[in-house]
Amino acid sequence: MLKQFVENVRFQNFIIAIIVINAVILGLETSPQVTSKVGGLLTVIDTIILGIFVIEITLRLYVYRFKFFRDPWSLFDFFVVVVSLIPASGPFAILRALRVLRVLRLVSVAPSMRSVVSALIQSLPGMGAIVALLSLIFYVAAVMATTLFGENFPEWFGSLGNSLYTLFQIMTLESWSMGIVRPVMEKQPMAWLFFVPFILIATFTMLNLFIAVVVNAMQTKHEMEQGKSDREVIEEAHDEREILYREIMHLRKEMRVLNKKLEGSKVNTEK
Amino acid sequence: MLKQFVENVRFQNFIIAIIVINAVILGLETSPQVTSKVGGLLTVIDTIILGIFVIEITLRLYVYRFKFFRDPWSLFDFFVVVVSLIPASGPFAILRALRVLRVLRLVSVAPSMRSVVSALIQSLPGMGAIVALLSLIFYVAAVMATTLFGENFPEWFGSLGNSLYTLFQIMTLESWSMGIVRPVMEKQPMAWLFFVPFILIATFTMLNLFIAVVVNAMQTKHEMEQGKSDREVIEEAHDEREILYREIMHLRKEMRVLNKKLEGSKVNTEK
Amino acid sequence: MLKQFVENVRFQNFIIAIIVINAVILGLETSPQVTSKVGGLLTVIDTIILGIFVIEITLRLYVYRFKFFRDPWSLFDFFVVVVSLIPASGPFAILRALRVLRVLRLVSVAPSMRSVVSALIQSLPGMGAIVALLSLIFYVAAVMATTLFGENFPEWFGSLGNSLYTLFQIMTLESWSMGIVRPVMEKQPMAWLFFVPFILIATFTMLNLFIAVVVNAMQTKHEMEQGKSDREVIEEAHDEREILYREIMHLRKEMRVLNKKLEGSKVNTEK
Amino acid sequence: MLKQFVENVRFQNFIIAIIVINAVILGLETSPQVTSKVGGLLTVIDTIILGIFVIEITLRLYVYRFKFFRDPWSLFDFFVVVVSLIPASGPFAILRALRVLRVLRLVSVAPSMRSVVSALIQSLPGMGAIVALLSLIFYVAAVMATTLFGENFPEWFGSLGNSLYTLFQIMTLESWSMGIVRPVMEKQPMAWLFFVPFILIATFTMLNLFIAVVVNAMQTKHEMEQGKSDREVIEEAHDEREILYREIMHLRKEMRVLNKKLEGSKVNTEK
Repeated sequence: MLKQFVENVRFQNFIIAIIVINAVILGLETSPQVTSKVGGLLTVIDTIILGIFVIEITLRLYVYRFKFFRDPWSLFDFFVVVVSLIPASGPFAILRALRVLRVLRLVSVAPSMRSVVSALIQSLPGMGAIVALLSLIFYVAAVMATTLFGENFPEWFGSLGNSLYTLFQIMTLESWSMGIVRPVMEKQPMAWLFFVPFILIATFTMLNLFIAVVVNAMQTKHEMEQGKSDREVIEEAHDEREILYREIMHLRKEMRVLNKKLEGSKVNTEK
Repeated sequence: MLKQFVENVRFQNFIIAIIVINAVILGLETSPQVTSKVGGLLTVIDTIILGIFVIEITLRLYVYRFKFFRDPWSLFDFFVVVVSLIPASGPFAILRALRVLRVLRLVSVAPSMRSVVSALIQSLPGMGAIVALLSLIFYVAAVMATTLFGENFPEWFGSLGNSLYTLFQIMTLESWSMGIVRPVMEKQPMAWLFFVPFILIATFTMLNLFIAVVVNAMQTKHEMEQGKSDREVIEEAHDEREILYREIMHLRKEMRVLNKKLEGSKVNTEK
Repeated sequence: MLKQFVENVRFQNFIIAIIVINAVILGLETSPQVTSKVGGLLTVIDTIILGIFVIEITLRLYVYRFKFFRDPWSLFDFFVVVVSLIPASGPFAILRALRVLRVLRLVSVAPSMRSVVSALIQSLPGMGAIVALLSLIFYVAAVMATTLFGENFPEWFGSLGNSLYTLFQIMTLESWSMGIVRPVMEKQPMAWLFFVPFILIATFTMLNLFIAVVVNAMQTKHEMEQGKSDREVIEEAHDEREILYREIMHLRKEMRVLNKKLEGSKVNTEK
Repeated sequence: MLKQFVENVRFQNFIIAIIVINAVILGLETSPQVTSKVGGLLTVIDTIILGIFVIEITLRLYVYRFKFFRDPWSLFDFFVVVVSLIPASGPFAILRALRVLRVLRLVSVAPSMRSVVSALIQSLPGMGAIVALLSLIFYVAAVMATTLFGENFPEWFGSLGNSLYTLFQIMTLESWSMGIVRPVMEKQPMAWLFFVPFILIATFTMLNLFIAVVVNAMQTKHEMEQGKSDREVIEEAHDEREILYREIMHLRKEMRVLNKKLEGSKVNTEK
C-alpha cells in the first residue's frame, strides 16, 4: 500500500512541485534585499520542504529497502538530502552552496530529464581511452612546463597544479597567446616550441574525443531506429536471398525429376 | 480579385524591392553626416514606405481575415509594422532601433529565406530536453556561485542575474581564466573546484546539444532524400523477399501436384 | 606543337619549381638583414621569374586563345601576373604585398591542391541561403547597435561599419564580454538584452551553416563512393526484386498451362 | 627463452608499474619542498628505474635485433631512454624536461592506449592535402602581413616567424580583435580588409579539415562494423539477385522444354 502511495503519479508531481518551490526559494535567498525582508519566512519554508524530503526518502527507504541503494538516482536523492541535514557550522558557505544541489532532484524525478542525463552518462565510457590519453598528455606537459617555466613564471607554472590549470586554460584557447605565451616568450623566446605543439596535439585529441562521441551518438540513434545493426541487416538480407536461391534450386531439381518421369512416360506411351 | 492582386508575384517583388530600399534608408539614417544633409528626405521616404506596408497588411488582413492571424509569418509582419506606428516618444531610441526589424520582413516574403528559417525553427523542439537540462545546470550553478563568490566579487556574482551572465560568459570561454577565475582564485584559491567542473559539464552538455541538432539534421535530410526512413526501407525489402519466397513455395506446391498427376497419368498409360 | 610543350609534365614541373623558388625569395625579402645584403640579387631573380611567368601566360594565351579566359584557374594566373606588372609607385606597400599571391599559383598548377580547393569552392553554393540569412541578421543587428549604442561608444558602434566589425568580433566570441558588453552595460545596464540573444542567434545560425556543410560533404563522399544516391540504390533493389517477381509469376502461369495440358493428356490417355 | 620472458604479460605489467612509479617520481620532483626533503631518494629511484629501462631495451634489442628498429613503438622507447642517458650538462633544463617523455612509454606498452594513438595517427594522411593548403595560406598571409604591418608593429609582424605566430594566434581567435586588429587599425584603418578575410578563409579551411577527419572516422567505423564498404554491400546484393534471376530463367527454359516434350507426348498418345 505504501509502495502504491510512493509510486503514485500524484505523489511524484507533488514532489516535483516542492522541488520547484524550493528552487525559487533558494534563488530568492541569494538576494540580500529579499532576505532582509522575508528571510525568516524563507527559512521556515525551506525547513518544511527539507522535512518533506526527509519523510519522502524515509518512505522510499522503507518501501524499497536494499533496492533503494542499488538505484543510482535514489542514491543521489539520498546524498542531496543528507548534505542539507549536516549542520552548516564551520565551513558554512560551502554547505549552504551545496544545498542548491537539491534542485537537481528535478532530474531524478522527471523521467524526460532522467533519460537525457542517462544518455549523456552512457556516452562517457566510449570516451574512456581518449580521456586517459588526454590525461597522460596533460600530466607529461604539466611536468615539462613546470620544469621549463616554473622558475620564471611561478604564478602560472610554479607547481604541478598551477601548470595543469594553466594548460587547461591554454587548451580552451583563452588568452593563451596575449595572456600567457607572449609574456613567457619575452624571457624564453623558444617557448612557442612547447606551446604551439601542445595546442595542436591537445585540440586534435579533443577533436577526436568529440568525433568519438558524435559517431557513437549517430550509431546508437541509427541502431535504435532500426532495432538492429547495419551488419545484421545486411546479413539478414543475404540469408533471405540464400533461402530464395535454395528454394529455386529445389524447384529445378523437382523439374528435372519431372522431366525424367515424363521421359519415362513418353517411352511408355511410345511402346 | 484582391486576393489575386495580393498573391501576384509582381506585387510580392514590389514589396521585396520596398523592403530593400527601406533597409538602405535605415542604414543611411545611422550616419550623422547623411542625416544632416538629406535627413528630411529620408524621413519622408521612410514614412511613404511605412504607408505602403500599412496598406499591404490591411489588404492582406481584408483578404485572409482570421486566417491571417493563424500564419506566424503574417503575425510577424503585423507586429513589425505595428511597432513602427507607435509614436516613439519616451524610450525613443529603443523604438527607433526596433524599426529596423522591418528589414527582417525579407525573410517572410522571400520563399528561399523562409524555408531556411523554418528549418532552423523546426530543429529547436528536438533540443528541448537538453536546453531544459542546461537551464537547470545554469540555475543551480548561478545560485551556488552567488552564495560562494557573491560577497567578494559583487560585480560578477553579486546577484543571481550577474552570476547567470558571468556563467554564460564562462561557458563561451571568453576571458574565463585571466578575466574571472584567476582573480577569484587569488581570494578563494579553491574556486577552480567550482569553475573547471562547471566548464566541463556545460561544454559537454552543449556538445551533446550540438550533436542532437546534427544527428537530427542528417536524419531529416536522409529521410527527405529517400522519402522513407531506414527502417521502412529495410522492412519493405524484407517484405518483398517474403513475397518472392511465398510465390516460389506456391510453384513448388504446383510442381508437386503436377508430379502427382503425371504419376497418375503414368500409371494410367501403363495400364 | 606549342600545346604539347605547354601541357608537357616537365614544363609544368618547371613552373612549379619556379613558383617554389619565388616563394622562398618573397619570404627572404621580408627580412631587412637579408635585403640589405643580397637585396639586389633577389630583385634580379624576382624579375627573371616574373619574365618566365609572363612568357608562360603568353604561350598559354596563344595556345588556348578564348578558352584561356573561360578557365577560372587561368584567369587567376593571369590576374596574379598582371598585378605584378603594374608599377608599384603610389600605394607601394599594398602592391608589393599582392605580389606574394603569385605563390598561390601553386594551387592552380598542382592538381592535388586544385581538387581540394575545387571541393572547398563547390561546398559554397550549398551555404548560400544561410549566408544570406546571416548577412541579413548582421545588417539588422548592426543598424540596431548603431542606433542604441553609437552615441555612447563611437569607437565600437559609431558607424554601420564599426558596428558590423564589432558584431563580427562578438560572433567569434573574442573579448565579447570583458572587452565590449561589460563596459557597455556600465552605461546601459540592459545592453545584455541585445547582445546575449545576438550571440545565441548568430552562433546557432553559424552552427547550422556548419551542419549544412558537413551534411553536404558526407552526402557527396557517400555518393562518390557508391556512384549513385541512396534513393537510386533502394529503387534499383526494388526494381530487381520486381523483375524476379514477374519472372516467377511467368513460371506459375507456364506451370498452370502445363497442368492444363497434362489434364488434357490425361483425359486423352484415359479415353 | 628470452623472447618468452620479454613477451610475458607479467614482465610487461612490471614495466607498466615501473613507468607509473616513474611518472609519480617525476611529478614529485617538480615540487621544491619535496626535492629538498627526499630529493636524494628520488634521484636514486629514478636512476634505478632508468637502469631497468636500459636493461629492458637491451633485452628487446637482443631478442628482436633488426626487427626492433622496424617497429615505430620500439624506436620511440629507444629514443626516450637514450635521451635520459645523455648527461644534462649545458642546456640542462631542456633535457630534464624531456626525461618526462618516458611516461609516454605507457602508450607504447598498454595495448588499449596504443590502438587509440594508432587511430589518431592513421587519421593524419587523409588530412594531407588540406594541411598543405593551410600551410600555403599561412605562408602567403605571413609574407603579406610582414610587408603590410611589419614596419608599424615589429613585435607582431616584424619577421616572417613573428607573423606566422601572430596569424596562428588570430586563427585560434585569441584576442584577435581587441589584442591585435583594433590596435593595428588605429594606424592602418583598412587593416580589417586583410584580417577579416584571413579569419574567414583560415577557419573555413580548418572546418573542412575537421570535416575530412570526421567523415573519414565515420567511414572507417562504418566499414569496420560491416566488414565491407557500402559499394561492396550494394554490389553483392545486386549479384545475388542476378544469380536468382539466372536460376529462374533456367527454370523457365526447362519449363519450356518440358512443355514441348509434353506436346510431343500428347501427340504421341493422340496417335
